[in-house]
Amino acid sequence: MPFSEDQFLHGLFPRLGAMPPEVVVPPGDDCAAVRTAPGRLLLLAVDQVVGDRHYLLEDNAEQNAEHETRNTQRGTPPELAGRKLLARNLSDIAAMGGRPLYALVAGAFAPGQDAAWMDRFFDGLLALGRETGTVLIGGDLARAPHDAVASLTIVGEVAENQVKLRSSAKPGDILFVTGTLGSSLETGHHLTFTPRLREGQWLAAQPGVRAMMDISDGLLPDAARVCRASHCGLRIEAARLPLRTPRTTVEQALTDGEDYELLFSAAPEAAGALADAWPFPDVPLTRVGVFTAEDAGRVAVTDNAGNPLSFSATGYDHFEKT
Amino acid sequence: MPFSEDQFLHGLFPRLGAMPPEVVVPPGDDCAAVRTAPGRLLLLAVDQVVGDRHYLLEDNAEQNAEHETRNTQRGTPPELAGRKLLARNLSDIAAMGGRPLYALVAGAFAPGQDAAWMDRFFDGLLALGRETGTVLIGGDLARAPHDAVASLTIVGEVAENQVKLRSSAKPGDILFVTGTLGSSLETGHHLTFTPRLREGQWLAAQPGVRAMMDISDGLLPDAARVCRASHCGLRIEAARLPLRTPRTTVEQALTDGEDYELLFSAAPEAAGALADAWPFPDVPLTRVGVFTAEDAGRVAVTDNAGNPLSFSATGYDHFEKT
Repeated sequence: MPFSEDQFLHGLFPRLGAMPPEVVVPPGDDCAAVRTAPGRLLLLAVDQVVGDRHYLLEDNAEQNAEHETRNTQRGTPPELAGRKLLARNLSDIAAMGGRPLYALVAGAFAPGQDAAWMDRFFDGLLALGRETGTVLIGGDLARAPHDAVASLTIVGEVAENQVKLRSSAKPGDILFVTGTLGSSLETGHHLTFTPRLREGQWLAAQPGVRAMMDISDGLLPDAARVCRASHCGLRIEAARLPLRTPRTTVEQALTDGEDYELLFSAAPEAAGALADAWPFPDVPLTRVGVFTAEDAGRVAVTDNAGNPLSFSATGYDHFEKT
Repeated sequence: MPFSEDQFLHGLFPRLGAMPPEVVVPPGDDCAAVRTAPGRLLLLAVDQVVGDRHYLLEDNAEQNAEHETRNTQRGTPPELAGRKLLARNLSDIAAMGGRPLYALVAGAFAPGQDAAWMDRFFDGLLALGRETGTVLIGGDLARAPHDAVASLTIVGEVAENQVKLRSSAKPGDILFVTGTLGSSLETGHHLTFTPRLREGQWLAAQPGVRAMMDISDGLLPDAARVCRASHCGLRIEAARLPLRTPRTTVEQALTDGEDYELLFSAAPEAAGALADAWPFPDVPLTRVGVFTAEDAGRVAVTDNAGNPLSFSATGYDHFEKT
């Protein structure tokens, strides 16, 4: 009986018990946040990569022979698998407007992953750590019978008066997204993306920015999470969506997942000035929708004439589908 | 080419780069420690459980039929698998003399682990969390193609002037162990043990206690880690070892692993008073050896006449053997 991560967590959260007062942001946002000193929050989150789900373990020789080079599925370079593990977590820190500090890695490696593979995995992870000021301070290594599963816990920090939550959107707010959406797997974006730390920190310092979240499962399901947390509805204009490639469809931009861009809501009176002040010319910033008071928790997508569009896919559930 | 976790980490640590000044205890101890306020350390560690390595995924029906009930291998109740995941991490907090605060869990579950199995897994984990004041503040769920891998990052705290490290033993110090050793798998101890938090916190407050560590891979390999970190030798008297059962051998007590007891070194002048003051009558405290200036990094085990004993097994490497 398949069930989604959201469904399971919905049942789990009430069983966690009361949170201590210093837990300022409880589970359910991109990171949890704990006050460690007045005005200072420690951010904590965990994410994982699973071999042959989030990256390919080895070259697929069968497919290689059948389809020649055109469709060859090459194993993911271990450096990129390790890089992705850290990058996914950095995206969660970016979504809170934070700065990364430390990481801890637990790796259960498959029998075929030898010391050389693991060395390259950590090469990629540590290189991105150096680029972003993230220091590996702990870890555990094990062998799994078949699979390769690695998890990373990220620790970051943010000023308490700058932290951005999923629950802060208000009706009338404008929805923005950074970068472009869709076609992440085909283009390799899911392995090589730059976590939006710089952008998240800049946005955190703007008072007009209200809710923020990273887009990992697809704009449609992730924006719906902001809507549920903020008790708002949302109308997305399909024609405004920034598509990653000329072949990317609106549906792909909404539901492919693995974009690792930021979505945020901005107060309507601040949105224009914010877009004008955006200091990152290499990263598109696009106004794609507006939050509403009606249909709380629901996202409507409309065509140019304002008519509703519907989509069969509901996004990328990392739990059951990837 | 098999290689141990220690070997791999030995190569990895130099690649981590310089630690920021607030990282008071870098990787290589039971926990890393970060100063978050003057005199206050945050403790961080990660550990994992792998299905069919650290617990049994399901009943082994074949063995059941062949050996009747006597040798039946029953699948581990999910509650105990979840409990073990947290308990292993709490043992690391205990080894630093700390108090647990928060946990984050990443679970990559096997296809056969349904919502009911996962519910029971978290039941066991959360029950031990309530008993020990550990609050789950984050997590991630995924599916693995075959295996069940779950990791937990523990966050704790300790006063900076009480933290106990592996590197603080001195020649002449007495080696103590809590509880009993060996036969952990046969007795189910590895699933039901009580992490020595209470004992670790009491020991942390005793100035005569120098080095401390938890025994997870076996007394012989774990004490050797203290010896290497402290640049000491160690002589263990076999006859003093507290054996878990009447059938437990000296070799099993030294190398079985999964004891989750504490070992610590005490200044010789403090050892007697410390043993007298030990306030936990239900937990044995046993003096089992003495640290030496010779043979730095090596552990010798002697019989009653002082003659060296040698052992083929070198302990329980969670990485390659479990």
